[in-house]
Amino acid sequence: MLSISITHHDGIARSGTIQTAHGIIETPNFMTVGTLGAPKGVTPQQVIAHGGQVLLMNAFHLAWRPGEERVKRLGGLHRFCGWSGPILTDSGGFQIFSLPGLRKITDEGAQFASPVDGAIRMFSPESVVDIQCALGPDMAMVLDECPAFPCTDAQLSGAVERSIRWAERSYARWKELAPPHVNLFGIVQGGFDERQRRRSLDATAAIPFSGLALGGFCVGEKIEDTHHGIAFTAPLLPADRPRYLMGMGTPLDIFHAVAHGIDLFDCTIPTRNGRNGLAFTSVGRVRIKNTCHSEDAGPLDPNCNCYTCTTFSRGFLRHLLLARELNAAILVSLHNLAFYFNLMRGIREAIKSRRLTVFAQEFMARWAGEDEGEGNGEED
Amino acid sequence: MLSISITHHDGIARSGTIQTAHGIIETPNFMTVGTLGAPKGVTPQQVIAHGGQVLLMNAFHLAWRPGEERVKRLGGLHRFCGWSGPILTDSGGFQIFSLPGLRKITDEGAQFASPVDGAIRMFSPESVVDIQCALGPDMAMVLDECPAFPCTDAQLSGAVERSIRWAERSYARWKELAPPHVNLFGIVQGGFDERQRRRSLDATAAIPFSGLALGGFCVGEKIEDTHHGIAFTAPLLPADRPRYLMGMGTPLDIFHAVAHGIDLFDCTIPTRNGRNGLAFTSVGRVRIKNTCHSEDAGPLDPNCNCYTCTTFSRGFLRHLLLARELNAAILVSLHNLAFYFNLMRGIREAIKSRRLTVFAQEFMARWAGEDEGEGNGEED
Repeated sequence: MLSISITHHDGIARSGTIQTAHGIIETPNFMTVGTLGAPKGVTPQQVIAHGGQVLLMNAFHLAWRPGEERVKRLGGLHRFCGWSGPILTDSGGFQIFSLPGLRKITDEGAQFASPVDGAIRMFSPESVVDIQCALGPDMAMVLDECPAFPCTDAQLSGAVERSIRWAERSYARWKELAPPHVNLFGIVQGGFDERQRRRSLDATAAIPFSGLALGGFCVGEKIEDTHHGIAFTAPLLPADRPRYLMGMGTPLDIFHAVAHGIDLFDCTIPTRNGRNGLAFTSVGRVRIKNTCHSEDAGPLDPNCNCYTCTTFSRGFLRHLLLARELNAAILVSLHNLAFYFNLMRGIREAIKSRRLTVFAQEFMARWAGEDEGEGNGEED
Repeated sequence: MLSISITHHDGIARSGTIQTAHGIIETPNFMTVGTLGAPKGVTPQQVIAHGGQVLLMNAFHLAWRPGEERVKRLGGLHRFCGWSGPILTDSGGFQIFSLPGLRKITDEGAQFASPVDGAIRMFSPESVVDIQCALGPDMAMVLDECPAFPCTDAQLSGAVERSIRWAERSYARWKELAPPHVNLFGIVQGGFDERQRRRSLDATAAIPFSGLALGGFCVGEKIEDTHHGIAFTAPLLPADRPRYLMGMGTPLDIFHAVAHGIDLFDCTIPTRNGRNGLAFTSVGRVRIKNTCHSEDAGPLDPNCNCYTCTTFSRGFLRHLLLARELNAAILVSLHNLAFYFNLMRGIREAIKSRRLTVFAQEFMARWAGEDEGEGNGEED
């Protein structure tokens, strides 16, 4: 089963390795989103070649299409999607409450209409564990209830208590199934109320999950509230288990959360923005369609060694984007992922040499203060 | 400048190498189409890794967007598109007569409205040489007049004579510019009239072009007439220069044309069909969306060693296609290109061991007789 070894600290920030049945993850790390089994526009081969170590997929979406039993018959998730490294599957708790199609939610679970063909299916804590055990990732997430924002105290408290009950049922089912390499993670909810966060954290941490995640952020609140909530909750997470901040990650978010002890991130930002020609670079964001790049023979990012930056000019990438060529999406997405992998490598090295604060300040100064946080918590 | 060395014959079929300033091309070979400077959905790195040796681009399209002078300022075509191997640019003669926007055609040239912004520009034999010399490919094509099908004898004869006059003017301009590594190819027209083909061939071959191409096929005629025209004309092309059959290439077309002495091909078939989920395999065409592939754990092509076939199952590729994932287009296009590169390698080896006929028969038997010729002569 999964184990984490923290080898370095820099304040609350920490660095080490998570060992899974499919290889190690150096932490802090960024998980490449491949919702349906494939990062959009980038092959697993390219992810590995550029330093990606772990993929994130979505059990809820995969359950509808192609179906977890089909994935299982096709050899399980790793074989199915051509990725032999670690995989985490999200339970789809976030989607259940953010996507249209929810019919009815009770303590039993969430009744949902298929986004593919409209068929009705019940997603219960148990069935979501079953689905993920059939898929066979290295890390699986419990089903949780992610309350809307804003909501009443009663609604928030109700969601926290239900999520705790669901976490206990999820763990019981997982223990019963005892899947060979699938580790189950709990999710801390609680919105922006410190008492509720604490209640959720204590109850979830009391269950011997393999890791713990922070959920319920980026649901419509101000970014200050997000960061305050993370700063409050993250350091309270058990130190002996991986800590995963779900679905968010602008560079600023990552620096902030790492400084408060987070190990794992995932976000659609690199690929979703890549498809639209927004590049993340060491000198800030570059909107490659802008006219100023039309005759720029330099790379997207002068400090990047990815295939895109070592091979193509900004002028060429702009040309591809304007011509709506498929390779524009591919090449900018690839660079953006490489940017994130390099960012995480830099963060790990900074923690190891106890200079995370300086590294973050220098990075954000080059980033020119810009940080709109686009894409947090969104579907890829 | 370019040179060709034919080292083996098998009947009229021939194999050897074309030396360009950017490397050699083993012949017969298939040029990967990257109309605007990029193969659709496949990176230059992936093309090389799978055995591709030469790219084809379109000077007419590049002249409109991003403009040949911009490409030149960005370092020339090779630097611009991130491909250091040989490149051939088509003149756009075919597009001028097949795409909407033609305003007026005279002996001077073709007046054309931009497909990008409607601007009017004259494409003359001289300006098309100028454009290509600014772009800087290894092989450039003259502007020719490709008559419609069917057309009258007078129209056919008029197009042939005009193409001959244009070929002479193109060559004169090319000689005057004396570009360091750009070789100019003539194009033989003449429709489906043997006397006209002969007249066009004799007059074009009399000009010391670096290579000669067959144009004017796949303009609406029956495939029997195409193949008859190629069988008649190809063997008459000068043996000491590369012979290029423009814009067509089903496997059957390629076997037929190679057997009649053709060295070079290009076609949008692999990438255009790849994007729609039609795979070319050693056991025939596979429509990967078909239900029969939904639980098929085997590769697209059991005899292929491409990234797609060594990594992913048919079931996974079908899942990606149904979910309209970007990687479906990427992975099937990549396989289809690898299929073509492997096909050409097989053909070269068969010629070298004088067993092309048997190789073709065995291949086409596995191909199960199917050959609709989709995509010949079409825009990518």
